[in-house]
Amino acid sequence: MSDTADSNGTSPVIATARRARAAAAELAPLPRTARDAALEAVAGALTDRAAEIVEANAEDIERARAAGTSDAIVDRLTLTPQRIAAIAADVRDVVALPDPVGEVVRGSTLPNGLELRQVRVPLGVVGIIYEARPNVTVDAAALCLKSGNAVLLRGSSSAYSSNEALVGVLRDAVESAGLPADAVQLVPGESRESVHELMRARGLVDVLIPRGGASLIQTVVRESTVPVIETGVGNCHVYIDELADLDMAVDILVNSKAQRPSVCNAAETVLVHAGIADRFLPRALAALGEAGVTVHGDEAWQKAGQNAGRGPGAEVVPATDADWETEYLSYDIAAAVVPSLDAAVTHIRRWTSGHTEAIVTRDTAAARRFVSLMDSTAVMVNASTRFTDGGQFGFGAEIGISTQKLHARGPMGLPELTSTTYVVTGDGHTRE
Amino acid sequence: MSDTADSNGTSPVIATARRARAAAAELAPLPRTARDAALEAVAGALTDRAAEIVEANAEDIERARAAGTSDAIVDRLTLTPQRIAAIAADVRDVVALPDPVGEVVRGSTLPNGLELRQVRVPLGVVGIIYEARPNVTVDAAALCLKSGNAVLLRGSSSAYSSNEALVGVLRDAVESAGLPADAVQLVPGESRESVHELMRARGLVDVLIPRGGASLIQTVVRESTVPVIETGVGNCHVYIDELADLDMAVDILVNSKAQRPSVCNAAETVLVHAGIADRFLPRALAALGEAGVTVHGDEAWQKAGQNAGRGPGAEVVPATDADWETEYLSYDIAAAVVPSLDAAVTHIRRWTSGHTEAIVTRDTAAARRFVSLMDSTAVMVNASTRFTDGGQFGFGAEIGISTQKLHARGPMGLPELTSTTYVVTGDGHTRE
Repeated sequence: MSDTADSNGTSPVIATARRARAAAAELAPLPRTARDAALEAVAGALTDRAAEIVEANAEDIERARAAGTSDAIVDRLTLTPQRIAAIAADVRDVVALPDPVGEVVRGSTLPNGLELRQVRVPLGVVGIIYEARPNVTVDAAALCLKSGNAVLLRGSSSAYSSNEALVGVLRDAVESAGLPADAVQLVPGESRESVHELMRARGLVDVLIPRGGASLIQTVVRESTVPVIETGVGNCHVYIDELADLDMAVDILVNSKAQRPSVCNAAETVLVHAGIADRFLPRALAALGEAGVTVHGDEAWQKAGQNAGRGPGAEVVPATDADWETEYLSYDIAAAVVPSLDAAVTHIRRWTSGHTEAIVTRDTAAARRFVSLMDSTAVMVNASTRFTDGGQFGFGAEIGISTQKLHARGPMGLPELTSTTYVVTGDGHTRE
Repeated sequence: MSDTADSNGTSPVIATARRARAAAAELAPLPRTARDAALEAVAGALTDRAAEIVEANAEDIERARAAGTSDAIVDRLTLTPQRIAAIAADVRDVVALPDPVGEVVRGSTLPNGLELRQVRVPLGVVGIIYEARPNVTVDAAALCLKSGNAVLLRGSSSAYSSNEALVGVLRDAVESAGLPADAVQLVPGESRESVHELMRARGLVDVLIPRGGASLIQTVVRESTVPVIETGVGNCHVYIDELADLDMAVDILVNSKAQRPSVCNAAETVLVHAGIADRFLPRALAALGEAGVTVHGDEAWQKAGQNAGRGPGAEVVPATDADWETEYLSYDIAAAVVPSLDAAVTHIRRWTSGHTEAIVTRDTAAARRFVSLMDSTAVMVNASTRFTDGGQFGFGAEIGISTQKLHARGPMGLPELTSTTYVVTGDGHTRE
């Protein structure tokens, strides 16, 4: 029980979750038009009240600067009227997406005449625990509302003032459209204890989605009794097969690693078939070097670096086991030469986080074998790992990328924020 | 770490899970023909080695009798050559079911020409913790093998000898068909500690499915770090609306409660609209009484019982809150009169375990409102709650009935034993 529990002994977090549960019951039967109207109201209110949001955001920025936060992170925290307008535009994009609720997933008339329909319904109460920029507050709320869910938002304490202002605007807008304001709530308290209470609110919260670094996600996965959808840690691999097109292989490798190294679908390790190493390693080292990437290589890569002499990419740092398991999220890549496709498979299965793996090959049999032996969210054949993304996949929205196997795997769009129920209609049917 | 850990400090349970993981990697790429051949071998071996199984079963029966176990439970534990032949026939039925693995769930060609396919793949390692009869051992193993998963079986200690014999036969058969024997394993040890180790084997076991009583299921849900699919507790409701056809209402009520009271989709509470109570309660009491059902009723039902005088069903036991939440699994039913459909909804949402609820009504608006306000696995309109069942739904097989919202909700067939992966095929595609 929290220090600030009320006279009934209910902590503020649990009280919030109870209100969310009641709001979810009100949301569930609403038709699309009602939910879309609320989202339109949200988009309008964000623009109308941008000044107030920017003011609250200034407090977070001031605190961050006083704490010596880097310019890059302060920039990610910063909201401007232009950025708020872009966030509002994103909400309008969500309005335009198809409604997942009510979709008949499967249906049939049973031999006895019973009509069976499996129908998508909201999950209920979705908790999002995130470390990211304040725009996530609005994105997550919009996707949850669109899919008929009440949302509990637990952002980082560094963005608390911004989140408080944003959620205030969201709640007013939702209420003005006739929906319960408690459909969108900030989890009260900035302490870790409030996260722990949220993780133990089984029966009130239907699912928790942690978005952020590996340590946040692991804590939630380990400690939560509420079901969790694990997201986003990506130790992604690119395997260059013996029969790869070398130009294509260089392009895919550099794109996978360096097009945007800070994201979960960037590559962290490259494995090269020994039969092609002599020809491929010098070209890869040059191209990676030019892109500003440091290679952490095995002996073969180190030797190739020495042979390359001076110039970009020539210096190969010796790799250790730590490199095989690291998600660098930076201009670094681990690199090894493997004797066979199956050796690449063994390496990947041992070290992967199960996000995205790519093979570059002209050999259909190799592609087929590689695909069949992976145990990851996505497998790319002759394409960059960077394509594992809700937007790229055409889902129109993404609440995160699940790296677990239950419920949702890969980019999660609106259907992944729903459950299903069976509706069975008869005419007095009883079982014999 | 267990007392019987080996020299590397690995407990027998964890060692078993590791072998299952390796077997799962071998199973994943196998085509249907290989998995079906193994199941055919299993069916054959069960019949061929029935004597050996019956002999092991006799040890369990002897222990059960010595412990004073009831005849009914001893009967459920008992295997005869005829019962084993029936189990083998069930395995052959599984062979005939469509293969869930490799099904393309969705697919499209993206605007940039990338070919996107979402494909069903095995989950990997499935753990089943069950209290039920030894036939579950074979059923669960067959469904897991069919769907390309390795299975870890943890049956009740009362059936340990039978399960050991059955798993021995299964492993030999699987191996004779060229599949890894470790695709089917019994979790070693009869202690509770072995269950706890299984629940903590996150990363080795992909999902745990507890099948059995509420207390087993709650323990697993609370303590497991391995993802769990919650099954089967059913506090199911039948609501008789003001505009119900009374004959139909009596039939559905009696069938829902008394056709087989020991199962999770049997009704445990009946709620009757006040506007129809005077006419319905006497008929319901007579019919329930005739079926041997004791009514635990509110004041209105008690009064109806008194008015009925002597005769079957006349004696109504006063109901307390405990009755609203009890899953009797017996010839007992809780009963209340409610002032409106919405009051019935409120009662159900408060007390239900989220399994199956039924409405009996001729009013389309009432049916629609009831369906939209339920938050359960299945909602029956003018049909018995007893229809929530994989066999009845035409799934051909059922590993359990999920009462949770993530991954699977309702009867789980073969597709629910799979995950999906995205396979993306390009021609050197990179992101801009």
